[in-house]
Amino acid sequence: MKQRWDTIVIGGGVAGCTAAMYAMRYGMDVAMLEMLTPGGQTTTATTIENYPGFPEGIQGPELAQRVHQQAVNVGVEIIMAEATGMRTGDDGRWMVQTVKGEMDVAAVIIATGAYPRSLMVPGEKELRGHGVSYCATCDGFFYRGQTVAVAGGGNSAAEEALYLANIVEKAYLIHRRDELRADEYLQKRLFDRQNVHILWNTVVTAVEGEGVVQRLALRNTQTQEPDSIEVAGLFIAIGHIAKTEWLGGLLELKDGFIVTDRLMKTNQPGIFACGDIRDTPLRQIATAVGDAAIAAFSAHSYVDRWKSEHQ
Amino acid sequence: MKQRWDTIVIGGGVAGCTAAMYAMRYGMDVAMLEMLTPGGQTTTATTIENYPGFPEGIQGPELAQRVHQQAVNVGVEIIMAEATGMRTGDDGRWMVQTVKGEMDVAAVIIATGAYPRSLMVPGEKELRGHGVSYCATCDGFFYRGQTVAVAGGGNSAAEEALYLANIVEKAYLIHRRDELRADEYLQKRLFDRQNVHILWNTVVTAVEGEGVVQRLALRNTQTQEPDSIEVAGLFIAIGHIAKTEWLGGLLELKDGFIVTDRLMKTNQPGIFACGDIRDTPLRQIATAVGDAAIAAFSAHSYVDRWKSEHQ
Repeated sequence: MKQRWDTIVIGGGVAGCTAAMYAMRYGMDVAMLEMLTPGGQTTTATTIENYPGFPEGIQGPELAQRVHQQAVNVGVEIIMAEATGMRTGDDGRWMVQTVKGEMDVAAVIIATGAYPRSLMVPGEKELRGHGVSYCATCDGFFYRGQTVAVAGGGNSAAEEALYLANIVEKAYLIHRRDELRADEYLQKRLFDRQNVHILWNTVVTAVEGEGVVQRLALRNTQTQEPDSIEVAGLFIAIGHIAKTEWLGGLLELKDGFIVTDRLMKTNQPGIFACGDIRDTPLRQIATAVGDAAIAAFSAHSYVDRWKSEHQ
Repeated sequence: MKQRWDTIVIGGGVAGCTAAMYAMRYGMDVAMLEMLTPGGQTTTATTIENYPGFPEGIQGPELAQRVHQQAVNVGVEIIMAEATGMRTGDDGRWMVQTVKGEMDVAAVIIATGAYPRSLMVPGEKELRGHGVSYCATCDGFFYRGQTVAVAGGGNSAAEEALYLANIVEKAYLIHRRDELRADEYLQKRLFDRQNVHILWNTVVTAVEGEGVVQRLALRNTQTQEPDSIEVAGLFIAIGHIAKTEWLGGLLELKDGFIVTDRLMKTNQPGIFACGDIRDTPLRQIATAVGDAAIAAFSAHSYVDRWKSEHQ
């Protein structure tokens, strides 16, 4: 494995592939680190209708594969290895530890993504993409005029429920406690909505249906009474998990996500972040590609300047 | 024409169509104002190789048409009219003046784009997309190992030349004065580059070639002597024009572009901006779609809150 690179992109999802493709087109020497299954969260999506350019929709795995191919076409070097740490090198460079050895790079673009937290109940995994969703912005539109449920009690659950209330006939909000953690003004708006029904002290115990979600098995957390509701969709909004432990406190985080400025710069010179791993108001493929183009642009300016000062 | 809307999107290019599509999917009532030729700057592009999802590239007009179709598919109302002004309405709403009458809206998303300034010389228009380009990030990669020229003397011309220097064999920088307006550190980096040749006191008088750019006719601005150089491409980097006069000073601008925060909010509540009209470090289709998704997300939160306070 070649050791020295202008830029390394960590993560092979849509953000990583886009950043690597742009960085390569900027004339840099670019390696992209991927884990065993390339494509990131996009591969878990069934039909994607809101990524601009595909009016008939596109399947997640196909879109992921197309964006990956685009990075390969321009000559990005793909390395199947996990990044396990990062330390400062000589002349302001970074040393990235991987399971295949250490890499010496001028700039790092982190695009390792995030994944939604799971309820871990029977049927959730099997019916993912067939009524089980982790993103109302992405999938809410499929449920126009139907009845759905949102599981969670924080700001994102409240926002998902409010958003869905504009689209669906009826939305349940299922929360295991007797009060929400969501901000006061979001709660007020939720309570005002005639078509939002909050099920307090309730948890989902199973997602049921033949091929698609048809009903949820519930349990009251106080009485332990079982119950059941008929819904066409379940939106799980109990947070995202972003893996940043390997960074060992190097970068500023907010709620576990990497903080960047509008140029996708982190608090460390030469380290950039883009896509779902970033502290961002919205996690979409559209926003990931926008972030990624800017991260590559910024990395290029940084590396170019580094070279003029050190070579 | 219906007068009252949740949200109006002004501009029918990729940013406008994406914002309208997202806003519609968020359950809002959305109209999109278009000028005579929909599709924006994307329609002027020939092959686009750097928009993620199209590994074989896609023609600009086709991509513009596909994104437009996507907005139409979700039910966005298209209105062929130019916005000519905006004033405050009742209850914090906005009144948008158009040639077809006034529209009463809770939120406005401005996506009117920008277009590159032209040299206005013979051959420029005819060879656009066939060697004449206004974006090195977009098209530089097509000229690997070849000789190209950049016209201009400001920061963007310097950045375009530096970027191209990493990719091409040789880059001319053609500037009509005897010094650059670009920042000192960019100038230093340019002067350090062995493969960048600056032609001082020089203007392009014609772009020449059979079907593709082959040479540039030049003139020395001091001696008036004509000259000629052989190049495969000409990158024109003399700025962008964004039409914002119709806003009558309502919004904060920077160098003529609309200033927003990371949620695409302008300095006026309920007015958002996205895409090339925005003060942004990079103008790409990828960044336009990212901006647009966030603008719609923010407009939805705003309108939802407006409704809970006023209805």
